[in-house]
Amino acid sequence: MKKRIVLALGGNALQQNGEVTAEAQKKVASTVGIIVAALAHKYEIVIAHGNGPQVGNILIHEEQAASSKAPAMPLETAVAMSQGQIGYWLTQAIHNAFVKKGINRKVATIISQVVVDVNDPAFKNPTKPIGQFYNEKQAKALAKVNHWTVKEDAGRGWRRVVASPKPIDIVEKRTIRELIKDGVIVIAAGGGGIPVYRTKVLKRLKGIDAVIDKDFAAERLAEEVKADIFVSVTAVPNAYINFGTPEAEAIHRITVKDLTKHIKAGYFKAGSMLPKIQAAATFASKPGRLGIITDIDHLALALTGKAGTIITK
Amino acid sequence: MKKRIVLALGGNALQQNGEVTAEAQKKVASTVGIIVAALAHKYEIVIAHGNGPQVGNILIHEEQAASSKAPAMPLETAVAMSQGQIGYWLTQAIHNAFVKKGINRKVATIISQVVVDVNDPAFKNPTKPIGQFYNEKQAKALAKVNHWTVKEDAGRGWRRVVASPKPIDIVEKRTIRELIKDGVIVIAAGGGGIPVYRTKVLKRLKGIDAVIDKDFAAERLAEEVKADIFVSVTAVPNAYINFGTPEAEAIHRITVKDLTKHIKAGYFKAGSMLPKIQAAATFASKPGRLGIITDIDHLALALTGKAGTIITK
Repeated sequence: MKKRIVLALGGNALQQNGEVTAEAQKKVASTVGIIVAALAHKYEIVIAHGNGPQVGNILIHEEQAASSKAPAMPLETAVAMSQGQIGYWLTQAIHNAFVKKGINRKVATIISQVVVDVNDPAFKNPTKPIGQFYNEKQAKALAKVNHWTVKEDAGRGWRRVVASPKPIDIVEKRTIRELIKDGVIVIAAGGGGIPVYRTKVLKRLKGIDAVIDKDFAAERLAEEVKADIFVSVTAVPNAYINFGTPEAEAIHRITVKDLTKHIKAGYFKAGSMLPKIQAAATFASKPGRLGIITDIDHLALALTGKAGTIITK
Repeated sequence: MKKRIVLALGGNALQQNGEVTAEAQKKVASTVGIIVAALAHKYEIVIAHGNGPQVGNILIHEEQAASSKAPAMPLETAVAMSQGQIGYWLTQAIHNAFVKKGINRKVATIISQVVVDVNDPAFKNPTKPIGQFYNEKQAKALAKVNHWTVKEDAGRGWRRVVASPKPIDIVEKRTIRELIKDGVIVIAAGGGGIPVYRTKVLKRLKGIDAVIDKDFAAERLAEEVKADIFVSVTAVPNAYINFGTPEAEAIHRITVKDLTKHIKAGYFKAGSMLPKIQAAATFASKPGRLGIITDIDHLALALTGKAGTIITK
């Protein structure tokens, strides 16, 4: 039986060398396609991708060019738009790589809603900057009109900040499971998923403006589809201790227990390597599972145990 | 066994009374959800929706606010974005209507590529205006830089025009079929589908800037999923002869043969009722099938034969 992998692909990874056109991002997607095609005979594959820079640009366009005739879409809808955008690029790239290798497998992007808790403490203290920069006056005026929280962002200007709550459920999980069973390569929970919550009384889904960490959402997805392996695909071949210093040391094989010590020692940067480490460690904390952190070039090798940071219970 | 319906839902239908905010469009989507929930016990349902005004606004935002850091996405990618956007709204609305009625059915939006022929004569004569209005000088300058065709649009200014080629295949058809079999309400081929063509030698898929008529794409989808009923859901309860005149006469039951005579007599407006009529007639030209044209309010009644324009072989 094929092992089941969930790949959490960074949204930044699609924009190599700062190239942000659709054409350039499709080119990177085609590399992903080739690698997925190389793995497809051995694995069932689910891809969850980030959307940081892509949804950022959508929001900038929506905010800058908003008018009464063409109003800006809210963040949650912008996330849905970025799922369509990136999902399309990846679907096409994987399809084309399959055609080239004569692989008869289907690939599909599922628009995915991810449930968060409205009482998540993150909503009390929004920290995730999104959209364009404003000056203080503009920012505060927009905050008033739109009920935004705005903050000064590291001397670069003022921006809207939103909450980054934890994902607690994936609405489309049953459909995703059926598709995997049917042999489909599934792209889901893009950008951490469209953030929704369940209303208290009627249990309806309602969108909420927030940004769900894509590694946490992908790990949730990995749990829901009972994956064997969770890979956070990032810009570096390994996780490191003392990253960015002369003492930097790549982590190869490590247990969740030892990794937890490193987390406590503050070795991993919040908002960068930390969520990947946390997601991979959470996943690997059950027996028989692998959590992997590596880059796209080392992915195939990491799956054979010969590269990457490999986390086991 | 449940009959299988494909609903082709107009993109304009989501913007009632000119209300274009996300909130207003979600409200309309919730009406669609209620109707789908009312039909779900009796039918397998596939929804193909239009995206005219939605992709129009995406393009306006993309074009107006484009910069080198946040370049405008091409039309084909904008269609993918609109599939995410509208698909999300519909998925959530149908899910919520199911929750309310205690219906245990899944609903999913599949990002869908629709294949066109690069030799389609439509590419020689682009006619479909998209995006924002420019003055003549701006339009011609943009046409030169971006390899656009631009035309003067009925005295309102200059706009880009693109081809509207015929859909010949739906890339995700096998996945869509599997989902229907699994009991999923599927939303697919949104906005007529992301227009792609197959490269001559390598048979790869490649996006192409075009607009595929949503009724034709939905009819193609209806063929691919072997639907029993195709409904073009529009703004009026019936198709009419002499529409908009004092002699206007609603068409109730009609054969494809008689309808073809009306088409030849020029009774239906190109770009408006004509493609709906053509799509429904094409579908109904095989025995045992129904082609229906009606509005959302009369949909349930039309399915029992008591409203709408019902086309049979």
